[in-house]
Amino acid sequence: MSRIRIGQGIDFHQLVEGRDFWLGGVLVPHHKGALGHSDADVLLHAVCDAMLGALALGDIGVHFPDTDNTYKNIDSKILLARCAQLIGEKGYQVVNIDSTLCLQAPKIKPYVPQMQAIIAGILRVTVEDVSIKATTTEQMGFVGREEGVMAYATVLLEKMAQ
Amino acid sequence: MSRIRIGQGIDFHQLVEGRDFWLGGVLVPHHKGALGHSDADVLLHAVCDAMLGALALGDIGVHFPDTDNTYKNIDSKILLARCAQLIGEKGYQVVNIDSTLCLQAPKIKPYVPQMQAIIAGILRVTVEDVSIKATTTEQMGFVGREEGVMAYATVLLEKMAQ
Amino acid sequence: MSRIRIGQGIDFHQLVEGRDFWLGGVLVPHHKGALGHSDADVLLHAVCDAMLGALALGDIGVHFPDTDNTYKNIDSKILLARCAQLIGEKGYQVVNIDSTLCLQAPKIKPYVPQMQAIIAGILRVTVEDVSIKATTTEQMGFVGREEGVMAYATVLLEKMAQ
Repeated sequence: MSRIRIGQGIDFHQLVEGRDFWLGGVLVPHHKGALGHSDADVLLHAVCDAMLGALALGDIGVHFPDTDNTYKNIDSKILLARCAQLIGEKGYQVVNIDSTLCLQAPKIKPYVPQMQAIIAGILRVTVEDVSIKATTTEQMGFVGREEGVMAYATVLLEKMAQ
Repeated sequence: MSRIRIGQGIDFHQLVEGRDFWLGGVLVPHHKGALGHSDADVLLHAVCDAMLGALALGDIGVHFPDTDNTYKNIDSKILLARCAQLIGEKGYQVVNIDSTLCLQAPKIKPYVPQMQAIIAGILRVTVEDVSIKATTTEQMGFVGREEGVMAYATVLLEKMAQ
Repeated sequence: MSRIRIGQGIDFHQLVEGRDFWLGGVLVPHHKGALGHSDADVLLHAVCDAMLGALALGDIGVHFPDTDNTYKNIDSKILLARCAQLIGEKGYQVVNIDSTLCLQAPKIKPYVPQMQAIIAGILRVTVEDVSIKATTTEQMGFVGREEGVMAYATVLLEKMAQ
């Protein structure tokens, strides 16, 4: 396989009352949280999928099926660590990640440095290699109506020196 | 032009009764199919657009206009082969492709290896260079209501050795 | 930081009567225009975000807040030039950009060469390094109902030789 590889991930979760709102490994105070089998961290899931996809290792649905009780309410940081292990076993490491969270509320800017530190720590890269951006959808669609959140991530991987 | 180039593609098609459902070059059994001028293969179209975009060659609407009867119900594998030829003429080849299909149903996991083999065969890369992931939109939006499907693809190209 | 970096950007704007419709730095004749604090150029915003994201410099909301009167109705070409300056200060330049505009109407194909020339001029790359594609969403969702527009961009940056 080539030395440099590209990956991308997209994830969606509904927002509902009575759930914690995990984003990028951080518990974000909000009156709603993301619904899912795991902790429903839409940003970490998009990053996991981008890492797996860069090496054609399947997707998070294949690796961590929502029919498997092992992953019930699981902390997605554990899934990210597992993805890091999988790409490491293939001899690759993350060059950099860029991502965008699409959500109408709340403002996530205050939490971004903490998210970057968590992700960078798990992937053993610097915080400058983990970009997290955010945008609203200008009140449009299911994100704009605060029914859900989306995240997109792209990643570059490179083969580690032997 | 630079040795390494990035491309991305996005495509959308409505799902309707009475149409075949082509995805990644595979006929997927389903009670609906994708509507379009060609065979409406949303995944192959996203991949074509990513390949064309990496070299700023326009988009599939420019190359294969839906007002041209030549492309009526055409097998999108022919369009993908044409895109492969176009990038080859520019001296480039595919490094790897990563893609995500967004659809609520059916589960496409059983068809992924066949899709990978078809795309890899046309592009003359290995199946490990063609990643196909899938996600639902958690019942949200037009994809969640099964009114349509979306696909996203990213690609890396590299200049071939002379 | 690594020599090659990846970035991605996504942006959304509502379409309303009584606003100019700026896309890729070009004033596109249309009965609606994009709503926003700046000139609401959805394509340039996605490109700016991709450039900032590749170096983890934050996002356009951080650099050009919509609460700051400096940016009221500002020409987004000025924002793009500022992003080019920011990546230049970090020692990086654009390798290539690929983007997709998602809008139901009007057809933007006639304006693409002008958009490419404007963006390439600001970023000091060739027009072959700036790809602009377009797609409808096949009448689906807020884009399909012509309530809004979306744009996606990916970018590769590389470290400049010293």
